[in-house]
Amino acid sequence: MPLLSRSFLAQMEFRVVATGPLVDLSFAVKDLIDIAGHVTGCANPDWARSHPPAVAHAVCVEQCLQAGAVCLGKTLADELAFGLTGENAFYGTPLNPAAPDRVPGGSSSGSATAVAAGEADFALGTDTAGSIRLPASNCGVWGMRPSHGRISVAGVNPLAPGFDTVGAFARDGETLQRVMSLLLNVDPLPTVSGRLWLLQEGFDAVEPAVRGAFEPVMKRLAGSFPCREISLRGIDGEGGISGMDNWRQVFQPIQWAEIWSTLGSWIESARPALGERTRRNFELAKGLDRRLLVAALAQRERYRAALARFLGPEDLICFPTVHTPAPLKGSLGLDRTQGDYFPRVLARMAIAGIGRLPQISLPAVDVEGAPVGLSLLAAEGNDAFLLAAALGVAAALDD
Amino acid sequence: MPLLSRSFLAQMEFRVVATGPLVDLSFAVKDLIDIAGHVTGCANPDWARSHPPAVAHAVCVEQCLQAGAVCLGKTLADELAFGLTGENAFYGTPLNPAAPDRVPGGSSSGSATAVAAGEADFALGTDTAGSIRLPASNCGVWGMRPSHGRISVAGVNPLAPGFDTVGAFARDGETLQRVMSLLLNVDPLPTVSGRLWLLQEGFDAVEPAVRGAFEPVMKRLAGSFPCREISLRGIDGEGGISGMDNWRQVFQPIQWAEIWSTLGSWIESARPALGERTRRNFELAKGLDRRLLVAALAQRERYRAALARFLGPEDLICFPTVHTPAPLKGSLGLDRTQGDYFPRVLARMAIAGIGRLPQISLPAVDVEGAPVGLSLLAAEGNDAFLLAAALGVAAALDD
Repeated sequence: MPLLSRSFLAQMEFRVVATGPLVDLSFAVKDLIDIAGHVTGCANPDWARSHPPAVAHAVCVEQCLQAGAVCLGKTLADELAFGLTGENAFYGTPLNPAAPDRVPGGSSSGSATAVAAGEADFALGTDTAGSIRLPASNCGVWGMRPSHGRISVAGVNPLAPGFDTVGAFARDGETLQRVMSLLLNVDPLPTVSGRLWLLQEGFDAVEPAVRGAFEPVMKRLAGSFPCREISLRGIDGEGGISGMDNWRQVFQPIQWAEIWSTLGSWIESARPALGERTRRNFELAKGLDRRLLVAALAQRERYRAALARFLGPEDLICFPTVHTPAPLKGSLGLDRTQGDYFPRVLARMAIAGIGRLPQISLPAVDVEGAPVGLSLLAAEGNDAFLLAAALGVAAALDD
Repeated sequence: MPLLSRSFLAQMEFRVVATGPLVDLSFAVKDLIDIAGHVTGCANPDWARSHPPAVAHAVCVEQCLQAGAVCLGKTLADELAFGLTGENAFYGTPLNPAAPDRVPGGSSSGSATAVAAGEADFALGTDTAGSIRLPASNCGVWGMRPSHGRISVAGVNPLAPGFDTVGAFARDGETLQRVMSLLLNVDPLPTVSGRLWLLQEGFDAVEPAVRGAFEPVMKRLAGSFPCREISLRGIDGEGGISGMDNWRQVFQPIQWAEIWSTLGSWIESARPALGERTRRNFELAKGLDRRLLVAALAQRERYRAALARFLGPEDLICFPTVHTPAPLKGSLGLDRTQGDYFPRVLARMAIAGIGRLPQISLPAVDVEGAPVGLSLLAAEGNDAFLLAAALGVAAALDD
């Protein structure tokens, strides 16, 4: 398959109706999501070779097309969506326009870069463990993971169904609000304020340069929003534990078990060629002691319930999307259990996953020439409020 | 594959731990749900032939096994879970012990009959459009569809992910509560009361014999529970429309679109042999005008939100699970759009599906020698309350 662009695996241009609320917008589609007549290759050549073309558009694609948007093609991703770097061993690494020497992040890498480069007005992605939020932060664009289960995943290749979501990228909050409101079937709300809870662990566990960059931003926000600090321990009630890693330790066994249940039979029977990092990721999923699963599921429900109790209808939890700007290309190891990059990313991504919460990452700061996003999370199902509040936050940052 | 029992497609007997909260219970598993080392055949021979063995237990199976329960095997179902009768063209019809001349209902047919016959203490099933609730009612056992998304569907073959759930059957409410609480990771609550909203359309749109049978039952319940009538129009606010069919008309295009997105590529590329009723069901899914999808998704969200506003934490919606006892074997047509059986069933099943609500069907009446269940629905996420309230209802009925 020729690489027509660094963001796209396959380019096309079509619309199905000439009117509708998204008629002025073009969009790109992650290669996990069906476009009728095309093989959904999941960014892995052996998957593409062994699967038939999609007979219908995924429901989310149908929604965008019926709203008048123009589809521009399929975007590159981490293989089978199991990755966070955007470095695909078969198709290369989409160029991060905001920081060309750095990875875009994944797994919805090409969707993020297509939007960041202005190649598409918005792009559909999937987010299981950060696959929209992380590349949005890395590439300096807006990205939203919705509340779990609110946007149809039919026609989207599953990874870990208990956490899988479909969401979108855009260059501005208004476009993101239009697209996500359409996908969610909610009316866009006018820009609103909200109560910001600054998650201490989320601000503490960042690199010093990131902390420094966020200081003036948070001062500015404090002038427009009621801001209070909250500790993750104040939410989950687990005294004596510091940091966020306990949330990752709950998230990860469930994610790995679900991934192996979802894709393991194909991996073991088809014996596909996998990039080395992807191969190791699947080895981890396969090797999980599944007895850990039951305790993790119980703890997930306790954490989910704690977040549900904590978050009122006007509450937002807020922290830097990631602890560091995007790593330099080629600098990340092949084993995600080595080093602290992946565990630190996954710990903060686990909060929305465990809580089934919607989360938006919006461009916030520049650290050594690379962007880092600010994340806002709201209560489960409070997606329309989150979108409107994120516009309010962006307006306060622009003042 | 030899039919060792009318309920089972494959029998086995194993446990993985000898202690745990379900150690005294045996269970059966619908052939849509993975048992490690066995092909998940989805009750269709060509699916079974063309798919590799599962490499791991589905998450829900793992939860039961780690709790000490004994797994007894895979149960028969409607092919690919796309059916409501239990009449499988390849493997036959599991015997409905409560009414041997009638269908068990599907798609989780063998799971219902295994429990009804005493062959297993509980059974796992899936419910997209009634596939637990209907056979539970037909076979005179308890069955629960949980809130959407609360029990992992990893390792469960998808049908329509926006509605798919994993739930269970049991012969009594206490066993159902134990199993479902474990799967949901909630603490079982003591038997409670609750406010019963009798859904007018649900009681009106039943056969006269069913209405007659429910009259003394509802009188008895009114002595123990605060009961009020509510119209579906009082919930959805659509004046001028009578009956429940508008809810089916919202549910069905979404279900069919999701089914075709999920299974259509396999159907079209593998060209499997399908039973005639299943073949026609897939033709309907394929033939759907997918432009209907967008309006249905918007209406689904309005209905879901209306149910969420209506249902407080102690509210239960209540109606007969189905308008008629199980049809006689062989009496149902092959085309679900002909006659009124399927539309009438689907209309009442659509309410929980659209609302993402938990629903329990519990044995309530005998109509001409065949059982019909009473259904209780609670707010999304209020599954623990629903289980405890259903015990209260059962106790009131036994008085």
